[in-house]
Amino acid sequence: MARIAVVAGDGIGTEVTAQAQKVIEAVLPGTEFNDYDLGARFYNRTKEVLPQAIQDELARHDAILLGAIGDPSVPPGVLERGLLLKLRFDFDQYVNLRPSKLWPGTTSPLAGVKPGEIDMVVVREGVEGLYVGAGGVLHKDTPAEIATEESLNTRFGVERVIRDAFARAQRRDRQHLTLVHKTNVLTKAGGLWARAFAAVAAEFPEVTTEYQHIDAASMFMVSNPQRYDVVVTDNLFGDILTDIAAAVTGGIGMAASGSVNPERKYPSTFEPVHGSAPDIAGQGIADPAAAILSASLLLEHLGHHDEARRVSEAVAADVASRTPGAPQRTAEVGDRIAAAL
Amino acid sequence: MARIAVVAGDGIGTEVTAQAQKVIEAVLPGTEFNDYDLGARFYNRTKEVLPQAIQDELARHDAILLGAIGDPSVPPGVLERGLLLKLRFDFDQYVNLRPSKLWPGTTSPLAGVKPGEIDMVVVREGVEGLYVGAGGVLHKDTPAEIATEESLNTRFGVERVIRDAFARAQRRDRQHLTLVHKTNVLTKAGGLWARAFAAVAAEFPEVTTEYQHIDAASMFMVSNPQRYDVVVTDNLFGDILTDIAAAVTGGIGMAASGSVNPERKYPSTFEPVHGSAPDIAGQGIADPAAAILSASLLLEHLGHHDEARRVSEAVAADVASRTPGAPQRTAEVGDRIAAAL
Ligand SMILES: CC(C)[C@H](C(=O)O)[C@@H](O)C(=O)O
Ligand SMILES: CC(C)[C@H](C(=O)O)[C@@H](O)C(=O)O
Repeated sequence: MARIAVVAGDGIGTEVTAQAQKVIEAVLPGTEFNDYDLGARFYNRTKEVLPQAIQDELARHDAILLGAIGDPSVPPGVLERGLLLKLRFDFDQYVNLRPSKLWPGTTSPLAGVKPGEIDMVVVREGVEGLYVGAGGVLHKDTPAEIATEESLNTRFGVERVIRDAFARAQRRDRQHLTLVHKTNVLTKAGGLWARAFAAVAAEFPEVTTEYQHIDAASMFMVSNPQRYDVVVTDNLFGDILTDIAAAVTGGIGMAASGSVNPERKYPSTFEPVHGSAPDIAGQGIADPAAAILSASLLLEHLGHHDEARRVSEAVAADVASRTPGAPQRTAEVGDRIAAAL
Repeated sequence: MARIAVVAGDGIGTEVTAQAQKVIEAVLPGTEFNDYDLGARFYNRTKEVLPQAIQDELARHDAILLGAIGDPSVPPGVLERGLLLKLRFDFDQYVNLRPSKLWPGTTSPLAGVKPGEIDMVVVREGVEGLYVGAGGVLHKDTPAEIATEESLNTRFGVERVIRDAFARAQRRDRQHLTLVHKTNVLTKAGGLWARAFAAVAAEFPEVTTEYQHIDAASMFMVSNPQRYDVVVTDNLFGDILTDIAAAVTGGIGMAASGSVNPERKYPSTFEPVHGSAPDIAGQGIADPAAAILSASLLLEHLGHHDEARRVSEAVAADVASRTPGAPQRTAEVGDRIAAAL
């Protein structure tokens, strides 16, 4: 039986996560769920973000189902770094998985782009690059101040995420993989990424490949997002590119994500891309679609392929059946999808 | 009399630059133009990108009018780094200016966005950040390989570009300035940018301000580009954000840019954002609008405000008068605009 740690978090996080849990229970009855009260409330009470004892408990789960963290009462960055990024790094979640699909029933802000036409997965490196926190500040807040940020890239770390992306591309219909970097300016890191990409490509002869600079890719993501199948890129570029991908597929309402340790040595975290949305929290009107799609990624990761597919199809069917623009009640959506399964 | 160095460059660069020059001659008769044959042809002939003697000559001009450089015959990055970036750094072109406007007669890929609704300027820092080339590679192409890239940020460099952006915002109708960074992850550089921004803001009480993370800004650039007036950001974020801005205003057909040394201690470079487009080069069908708008930025920089305005209005009128989608002849567009002046 799967053991899932639930970190529902703040704001609408608790509301949408309850629906994701409901849906997992519907397809995998008997799953063990353990709640962990982390996020803004916990931080304000204890001034701690993630005590080691809780982290050790989280480590003894198969996966973490996360809602959203963040509240105006906490200084920006504290929870993101102390919880989300800490889990990514400590649990070696090196594959940051972000599918983007224009689902039937949703509308792209791009004129003339129809549901079904956009269907991509961005595989973002999760534990290297500029996210490692290397760098420093000298002479703070004087005219002599300097600040540095260092992007660290290892062949080991880059190669494994590229290999993961190739394997995903190979399993998809179009079997196409785009590497995104900025090799013309970031020659050191870009060179390493390009060399690793070329080396791994030889293992996947069926997969067609392409390279784009991050600036060009950001433009194509708007002018022609249909062209992408699987995209692999570094931590920061992936952060940016996945938000553009979410925007062109109608915003973060359907954007799911997984911070994945593919070897399952550590638990992986699954969460909607949207935040805690304090402005609408507690009203029961948050759409749980992205949270439930994140649950589908979780099921897929744990090897429950059939259940994962059924859940994402049920979400798709529910969204397609809605009256466009009609307000949704969080629990009703969860009930409808659970009932359909 | 202004002395302008012309680096027409490769592919369509030569064709569109001729029109930009024609237009400057129309509004500022007697301007001195000196041609410099740099780019792929020069590199292939000499294996040099920018000899010091030529750079010294360029330095004795008021501005550089650049077309486009790049050709498949030259390894990627060589000309970009050896010419474009070298000029930015050696000529201290720390303000990288990129206006984005949805002009009448052009179409945004965004549904329902009408001409006039998008009108922003991105002020991108031009000589610091990840573009400095700091970093290295160890154990190249072995499993032990590591590669680093270092972002260097000085209070001096950040403050001056922020001050420039505030001054531009103050001169515009909406007087709004958005700082874009990633302070929640890049705490060192982000902290310096945020502190410098807060300090300079005190000098411009009329300007309203806002902060956004780069990932959120990339999303808003698609979902609501109308919200931006002036944006200030670092070198790499500016590279990405301006390409998204170009995409939502209909692509790079109207995208002009200036790499500016505001003190005019060194010449500034003005160029269209588009590349050399080898596929359509030599056919006389490239639209010179972006090159002529870059000439308008050049005129503005040299203090010819009235001429700058007249040129950009003439481009706007020409574009608005075209039959949508009708092919344009490069020289005819230049002739029409020059004649209208
Ligand atoms: C909250 C923040 C640290 C995080 C990131 O930058 O990775 C978020 O933007 C994301 O994409 O998951
Ligand atoms: C060609 C390249 C070095 C350059 C950059 O990255 O700045 C280009 O993308 C630009 O935006 O001017």
